[in-house]
Amino acid sequence: MRRKEFQVAEPEQCIAFLEEKNDGVLTFIGPDGWPKCVPLNYVYHGEAVYFHGSKQGEKMAGLAADPRAEFVVYQAHAFIPSHFTDPYMACPATVFFRSVRIRGIVAQVEDPEEKASALGALMNRMQPEGGHAPIDAADERYVASLRGVSVLRLDPEEMSGKFKFGQNLAEKRREQVVKGLSERNLPGDPDTISRIRDSALKRQISET
Amino acid sequence: MRRKEFQVAEPEQCIAFLEEKNDGVLTFIGPDGWPKCVPLNYVYHGEAVYFHGSKQGEKMAGLAADPRAEFVVYQAHAFIPSHFTDPYMACPATVFFRSVRIRGIVAQVEDPEEKASALGALMNRMQPEGGHAPIDAADERYVASLRGVSVLRLDPEEMSGKFKFGQNLAEKRREQVVKGLSERNLPGDPDTISRIRDSALKRQISET
Repeated sequence: MRRKEFQVAEPEQCIAFLEEKNDGVLTFIGPDGWPKCVPLNYVYHGEAVYFHGSKQGEKMAGLAADPRAEFVVYQAHAFIPSHFTDPYMACPATVFFRSVRIRGIVAQVEDPEEKASALGALMNRMQPEGGHAPIDAADERYVASLRGVSVLRLDPEEMSGKFKFGQNLAEKRREQVVKGLSERNLPGDPDTISRIRDSALKRQISET
Repeated sequence: MRRKEFQVAEPEQCIAFLEEKNDGVLTFIGPDGWPKCVPLNYVYHGEAVYFHGSKQGEKMAGLAADPRAEFVVYQAHAFIPSHFTDPYMACPATVFFRSVRIRGIVAQVEDPEEKASALGALMNRMQPEGGHAPIDAADERYVASLRGVSVLRLDPEEMSGKFKFGQNLAEKRREQVVKGLSERNLPGDPDTISRIRDSALKRQISET
């Protein structure tokens, strides 16, 4: 069940998350009819998601036969142990996370300029310090590589985000979680606390 | 193309990785015929992968209609910038990672004892410090919760691992990567260096 209270209302928040991360899982239907999933680096560029890879293999064969795909990017922020809010039952144990799912059609990019632009954006994302010649379809040293690499573009038809930071909790329980995180104080916990506060505030505003 | 040199030969290594991690992406075919992917916590328990969730929603509807699934667990270990090995071309930029993919049929677990055992294993994995009553199908306080939660079991038919730590590199390049990581010295880098060394050694042994 996709609980309404965790759904991200603003597409900008989904896009900001996609711009922040660099790997996810691409799902498609294989040539044998089975669902397949492949972890991949990606870049969100020009309102599309770009991947690259080898020209051979099941990903290319599967997507050539059936270009429907879903892609998911996920980040676990904090495990919330049950004992933060309940001394007996295990049930309240959960993970606070962000995820964005994108559904759409995957196209094989053939145009060398678009390939170069997508790969350049991926390099900027992964290697912001530079230290390489710009990827340019006119640069002789890149021509063969650009021809040899496969670049895929997922054009989003639907995008949905689920950010779970205790929006379903009553205030008392939410404060117990905040107290537990604050005492535990793992590296990500202060950030999670501020996301819990933001999410509660947003929920309050949307209800008034 | 699934490059042979990155494939994990020993199933024990895949299982050790599954036991080390706690989230992945479950892929199935939705009621609308599209591929779907859902990030989930899991536990590897009794040679199967267990998930839990709500009894309603697309995951349950999709898997009830077509129980074929693939599940992937992934960890990015280190981004390897191109300039570790090449002063000009961007092409050598890559990520060293581990991933395991499992393909099989997903069954809905109905037996309260098996449900309790799987959820207990998940709690041990996520919350090893305890702090809750053992999940027991005979414990009155757990009966309704066990009835209300859906537990899914993926029985592996095929499992494949891909651990990429520079096995495709010639010794000179591999040493440049090790030197680059050693100088960069991000938190995960020493661990990545030892995985590069192990992988090179294993490859050497398998070739002799």
